[in-house]
Amino acid sequence: MYKLIELQTGVCSAQGFFADGISAGLKSNNAEDMAFIYSQIECEVASVFTTNKMTAAPIRHFRAKGEFKTNFILINAKNANAMTGKVGIEDIDTILTTLPKVVINPVMSSTGVIGVRLPQEKIIKGAKLFDLTKKEPNAAAKAIMTTDSFSKQKAFKVELEDGSTFSIGAMAKGAGMINPAMATMLCFITTDADVSKVEMQEILDEVTITTFNAASVDGDTSTNDTVMLLSNKVSGAYNRDGFKEALTKIMLFLAREMVRDGEGATKLVTYKVTGATNDADAEVVAKALSNSLLVKTALYGEDPNWGRIASTVGASGVEANEETLSISFNSLCVYDTGKLLFDETMEVEASKIMKLDTFSISCDLGLGEGKFTSFGCDLGYEYVKINADYRT
Amino acid sequence: MYKLIELQTGVCSAQGFFADGISAGLKSNNAEDMAFIYSQIECEVASVFTTNKMTAAPIRHFRAKGEFKTNFILINAKNANAMTGKVGIEDIDTILTTLPKVVINPVMSSTGVIGVRLPQEKIIKGAKLFDLTKKEPNAAAKAIMTTDSFSKQKAFKVELEDGSTFSIGAMAKGAGMINPAMATMLCFITTDADVSKVEMQEILDEVTITTFNAASVDGDTSTNDTVMLLSNKVSGAYNRDGFKEALTKIMLFLAREMVRDGEGATKLVTYKVTGATNDADAEVVAKALSNSLLVKTALYGEDPNWGRIASTVGASGVEANEETLSISFNSLCVYDTGKLLFDETMEVEASKIMKLDTFSISCDLGLGEGKFTSFGCDLGYEYVKINADYRT
Repeated sequence: MYKLIELQTGVCSAQGFFADGISAGLKSNNAEDMAFIYSQIECEVASVFTTNKMTAAPIRHFRAKGEFKTNFILINAKNANAMTGKVGIEDIDTILTTLPKVVINPVMSSTGVIGVRLPQEKIIKGAKLFDLTKKEPNAAAKAIMTTDSFSKQKAFKVELEDGSTFSIGAMAKGAGMINPAMATMLCFITTDADVSKVEMQEILDEVTITTFNAASVDGDTSTNDTVMLLSNKVSGAYNRDGFKEALTKIMLFLAREMVRDGEGATKLVTYKVTGATNDADAEVVAKALSNSLLVKTALYGEDPNWGRIASTVGASGVEANEETLSISFNSLCVYDTGKLLFDETMEVEASKIMKLDTFSISCDLGLGEGKFTSFGCDLGYEYVKINADYRT
Repeated sequence: MYKLIELQTGVCSAQGFFADGISAGLKSNNAEDMAFIYSQIECEVASVFTTNKMTAAPIRHFRAKGEFKTNFILINAKNANAMTGKVGIEDIDTILTTLPKVVINPVMSSTGVIGVRLPQEKIIKGAKLFDLTKKEPNAAAKAIMTTDSFSKQKAFKVELEDGSTFSIGAMAKGAGMINPAMATMLCFITTDADVSKVEMQEILDEVTITTFNAASVDGDTSTNDTVMLLSNKVSGAYNRDGFKEALTKIMLFLAREMVRDGEGATKLVTYKVTGATNDADAEVVAKALSNSLLVKTALYGEDPNWGRIASTVGASGVEANEETLSISFNSLCVYDTGKLLFDETMEVEASKIMKLDTFSISCDLGLGEGKFTSFGCDLGYEYVKINADYRT
């Protein structure tokens, strides 16, 4: 039916897309701090934005455009253009009018400190350095990083039975949903698939639930969280299942990479909640676990403290009870429907699992069919250091 | 109408109440680890318990009794008797039957590790050391501590116009709502006021909202959280306003002391939220602020990062917008209804406030009359150390 082939060309994987990152002097050390994505053909846009009420100016600017096609995204790091009121919107307009004539309905996206006006002149000068014929996805992916310790990209070509192909490529930033002052996660996805705007939005919404919305570093939602999916349709090819599978693989990979790169994180833990009364309850529990400070510090201490898992399930507010609950670390069941299994032998086994970089914690609530899987990391000294000392 | 006089005699302040703490070998170093409260006269009991669904055995045991009067509370530290199923209840029954004959309908309360059976023999032996003629409130208050770094007591005598008096005294443990594995907050309050059970419960419920339920160290709710208020009515005196004021002062003091003693906490911050659409919204925002990891680490770093405050307000989900929001550190307004005030001079002023041990952060949402005040602390390396290394 279709075949997925992984590509290493990020947001330049789909035909007709160009991208690059340059240094405009926003970051120190001449690091890349501005990026563009350009398509020769105008694109349909699907998007998911933060639910934070203090929505940053670039998101308000995007929304005010109503229905539109674009061929250009301008992204800057170091300044979120959030809490900047009308001036924040005006600054975007000023900057976008200086772009070359080939640019149609450009979109801006920002990440960085909240509550400071954009350094307009630097950004306008920086944009003049863009060469729209460049295909440098790595430089673009590096430019959008803030506290990230590595850049994040993923791309697939989808090959259909009749030999036709389309591609999807993405880049993301965000050392987790953890740093609103730095404006947290951004993700840009480009495709040449011949997909309608409506269908693209529908699939993006659905896939977001189990990927970016299932990933947490500290449970905070920033002013700037953005996922944008651009389609220029130039491949002329499309297959819904193939598109959805590739997009899911891309977004799941990027979501997990963000958590793995969570500030100070040393572990990536998957919380598999099953047996809840319904999926919504399972989601509440899975997110409570990935956000619990007590669970996160126990992970950091490599302490198989299943009591904290049980207590967090109980504190989440959904229907649950100790008689039907079971808890496992990977495949090791440490608590089984009211039976205290945990002894010294089991502690040794459980401790070994806790020392792994990646493992799963499963909670079966034993009540129904509801299930949800979330991703989280531990919280250690490094998180405190990064977040306490950030501005000083 | 009435006068409040502070006493230094904790849970032995009200007439007819005895208390002491002894060492049963549950803690190391012969530290006190079991306490009792005894009244010669049977008491009405009002109570507030955890909302955690994994309710610990002592709370389930209490609830199963239905309507009852008691003259004895037995409290142990180091073991929460939580996630212990039916055996946990049976263990309580076994222990309580060994108490002296003068004890009527005894109640047990536990705090400590989750998921381990009570050390029955030690507790039964320990209870035999109790001397019911002792008035040692300090020893009792020390015995119920777990990760607390100091004991917490408060008491008032209420003097009415006719010269009659009644007293209320309390002790509490809990280095914050921060340590479910250690079973978190317990508070025991004794009074000789001639108050009905119904009225006592009504006032306790009301006062809990703005005191213990407004205090947070890490937003976790334990399996064992308990507030018990015992009245033996022996003073024959009562005045609702005086009773409520004294109880509020006691519970507010203890709630703030718990937060101040939050694991690794160096600051006590009061979040005053006003101008919300309604009180419920204000409560959501106030608790979001006191629980936000990003706000807590900024406090620890003494960083006047008002952008994180704004973002947390926005992320809380209630109605809010940047055009009507104002933020102050103590009386210093750092953001005023859409206007960016923050400059280097203000940063110097704000940084001075952030270096204080105790200060307030006010958020006026500018939308309505809703208000709520919460208490929180910072989160630093010491919190991670205590919680990551606890069992190792």
